[in-house]
Amino acid sequence: MEIENYFSNRATVRDYSDREVSNEVINGILEKAMRAPTCGNMQLYSVVVTRDNTNKEKLAALHFNQPAATGSNLILTICADFNRFSRWCELSEASPCYSNFHSFIMAATDAIIYAQQIVTIAELEGLATCYLGTVNYTAKEISDLFLLPELVVPVASLSIGYPTDAPPVKTERLPLEAIVHLEHYRKDSDKEIKSLFKTKEEWPDNKRFVKENDKKTLAQVFTDIRYPLKTNETVSQTFINLLQEKGFI
Amino acid sequence: MEIENYFSNRATVRDYSDREVSNEVINGILEKAMRAPTCGNMQLYSVVVTRDNTNKEKLAALHFNQPAATGSNLILTICADFNRFSRWCELSEASPCYSNFHSFIMAATDAIIYAQQIVTIAELEGLATCYLGTVNYTAKEISDLFLLPELVVPVASLSIGYPTDAPPVKTERLPLEAIVHLEHYRKDSDKEIKSLFKTKEEWPDNKRFVKENDKKTLAQVFTDIRYPLKTNETVSQTFINLLQEKGFI
Repeated sequence: MEIENYFSNRATVRDYSDREVSNEVINGILEKAMRAPTCGNMQLYSVVVTRDNTNKEKLAALHFNQPAATGSNLILTICADFNRFSRWCELSEASPCYSNFHSFIMAATDAIIYAQQIVTIAELEGLATCYLGTVNYTAKEISDLFLLPELVVPVASLSIGYPTDAPPVKTERLPLEAIVHLEHYRKDSDKEIKSLFKTKEEWPDNKRFVKENDKKTLAQVFTDIRYPLKTNETVSQTFINLLQEKGFI
Repeated sequence: MEIENYFSNRATVRDYSDREVSNEVINGILEKAMRAPTCGNMQLYSVVVTRDNTNKEKLAALHFNQPAATGSNLILTICADFNRFSRWCELSEASPCYSNFHSFIMAATDAIIYAQQIVTIAELEGLATCYLGTVNYTAKEISDLFLLPELVVPVASLSIGYPTDAPPVKTERLPLEAIVHLEHYRKDSDKEIKSLFKTKEEWPDNKRFVKENDKKTLAQVFTDIRYPLKTNETVSQTFINLLQEKGFI
């Protein structure tokens, strides 16, 4: 794929053909992605590859059976992992000291950089990928399914496959000035904030969501339905509990 | 740059030439990177661009004046940002409900995906980039310098510039089997763990670090000098305090 067009036009694909991603292809991607930047060259990540049908069904259920999970033959779960490094320390007359929140942040950052490197390499090789944000919602159950040990926590899930012929749906983005702040964080006026979200509010799909959900504004679709308070608070607590169980806090 | 070679060979460059990265170039990169995957298309990130000499000196000091910070004309600080989205909710008859840990994880994930997309696009365009891991150590001071509001926390810093002619130093990586687990997390034996880290231990630069620091093993360089207990615990607490100050916990 041509680089310039790829970055300017990429869109997430949630429909996969039946064609399997071979071990050779996926291992090639995972190997190349290891050259991504990593904190102190510690490589504080692991990836669990799910291919087996029974496991795939269990895992898809933990991703609420969303089509991007059920429709893919291959799911990668990328974990923040300070276990391997700590074990090496123990075996090397060194006292590992990574049972703390900062170490989780280091490892989670490493893992997400690695996940995004996988996405870019895979998509440039003609594969389609989709992050399953549900990984945070059921991180405890996913952790149990994979028998994750101490200091290992899932932080990103990717379904991967060959795309169907259907064109990817390109969604809208905020204007660049929404994101970029020069020297200091700019305090936008209410009017400016409204203006930054104008394209989003007027995007046909988003207008449809408002109507279908019988809401007054698009923001209500997010606060009342997609990412509501009760869910956010429950997930916060279960994720904090998992960080405690795995020894990061 | 040729894609295939890029991903297999990339290495972090910490030496920059004096040539400035123009606004046009950096804005082009930041704009293209916005097509990276983002949670619910919320784009929960912002980037603070530091170019002004006085600010750059202050920021470099917060990165412990490491050469990758002092030697660059441009530093990007990528922040997890639920402020913009929450303000839009408030202005749209919706009650934002993102003052919780799960929302921090969503926003931090978004921000790191965006940061890594910037790295890939910039490097493919011939620029050099370096993550400054120190962003977590001084996140509170960086936050104050940038006047970051509620629900905005820095999670990744990148220095960016044109590379000098010096070849990048390619560091070693673990073998792929260290990272990849099939279906479940594999419990490696002590012998297997030692074997996975053999190349790392025998890498000439790493042997030199052991000697220079008067340590017995490479692991001790990490536990006693680079990422020691006291620092990890202090940074954990200050980062947790910042998440509280910014309303995420």
